Amino acid sequence: MALNNPNPLGPWKITVYDQENFQGKRLEFTSACQNIMECGMDNIRSLKVECGAWAGYEHSSFCGQQFVLERGEYPYWESWSGSNAYHIERMMSFCPICSAPKEYNHKESKMVLFEKENFMGRQWEINDDYPSLQAMGWGNNEIGSMQIQSGAWVCYQFPGYRGYQYIMESDRHGGKYKHYREWGSHAQSFQVQSLRRIQQ
Amino acid sequence: MALNNPNPLGPWKITVYDQENFQGKRLEFTSACQNIMECGMDNIRSLKVECGAWAGYEHSSFCGQQFVLERGEYPYWESWSGSNAYHIERMMSFCPICSAPKEYNHKESKMVLFEKENFMGRQWEINDDYPSLQAMGWGNNEIGSMQIQSGAWVCYQFPGYRGYQYIMESDRHGGKYKHYREWGSHAQSFQVQSLRRIQQ
Repeated sequence: MALNNPNPLGPWKITVYDQENFQGKRLEFTSACQNIMECGMDNIRSLKVECGAWAGYEHSSFCGQQFVLERGEYPYWESWSGSNAYHIERMMSFCPICSAPKEYNHKESKMVLFEKENFMGRQWEINDDYPSLQAMGWGNNEIGSMQIQSGAWVCYQFPGYRGYQYIMESDRHGGKYKHYREWGSHAQSFQVQSLRRIQQ
Repeated sequence: MALNNPNPLGPWKITVYDQENFQGKRLEFTSACQNIMECGMDNIRSLKVECGAWAGYEHSSFCGQQFVLERGEYPYWESWSGSNAYHIERMMSFCPICSAPKEYNHKESKMVLFEKENFMGRQWEINDDYPSLQAMGWGNNEIGSMQIQSGAWVCYQFPGYRGYQYIMESDRHGGKYKHYREWGSHAQSFQVQSLRRIQQ
């Protein structure tokens, strides 16, 4: 098992199943899994997050499309993948989102949006959820760069928390995401139309 | 055109296209459309919300699956449908969400969750967004009934704003939704694992 993502802040627990609706082979994890196949499971078809917030990834080693997994039940892949630019049917690795605060610290999450890459252009400090950035006054459908000052955030390609997800954390990259190439291996453009805080 | 949903509170504008990526035949609306086919369009494949918040529906006359549409660009159906229990590829009717407040009134949105149908059992007053109700202390993956005291809300079947959507408004049904049968013609169970406010 990968140990490159220890859990310094608290308990995490996720239970994954190789069949839909919590059927079939079952495995429990309390820390990151770099490759579900190395644990003897070909695919994850359903899961339950019992503790903490997790990031799921399309490929092994935390690559490809990203999915936020908060506490609750996910009976089949569409319940976590949401809408995507192309269909994928698997989740091969996952890890705790360590900088996601608990509820009582949730309101302290803070980030700065920049109009242009490399922290240039117009900027906007936010500490709330935005299902439509344009409705809240952001001028276009793109964000050039971002600095996460505290907490963990997830940005989405489309309004209403749809499309590609980009998980951003204050304790990764020093919270600095200066170009979409740093948002994740699946990022193909600056397009972001909604974003929100992640909670434990 | 349907006139059963007048717009007393402000401007709404949505532009729909019969091809993906804002191509093909184009129509603009500032009020409800009960059946897109009566406007000479077979299907909506992309859309832009320019003003206000809208509810999209799978079938004509505001029936079937519901989709929240906030300001921004939706280049193809997956950008508004999100994940669904079954795939649908169309949106046949839509209307303004009149009770969705503007940003400056957004924090006044309020609703009460009830553990059991008909406003029975444990209750919880909320005025914030909850990507995971279980993470915030709600005991299970169901809500029995809801009373919307102000604003407009959208509830989702799965955590992280995934799965079936149920749009709830303070100015419909007197804000009372006493059983899942009142949540929409597509509702099949009490399962709700995330919910949030809708803004203009």
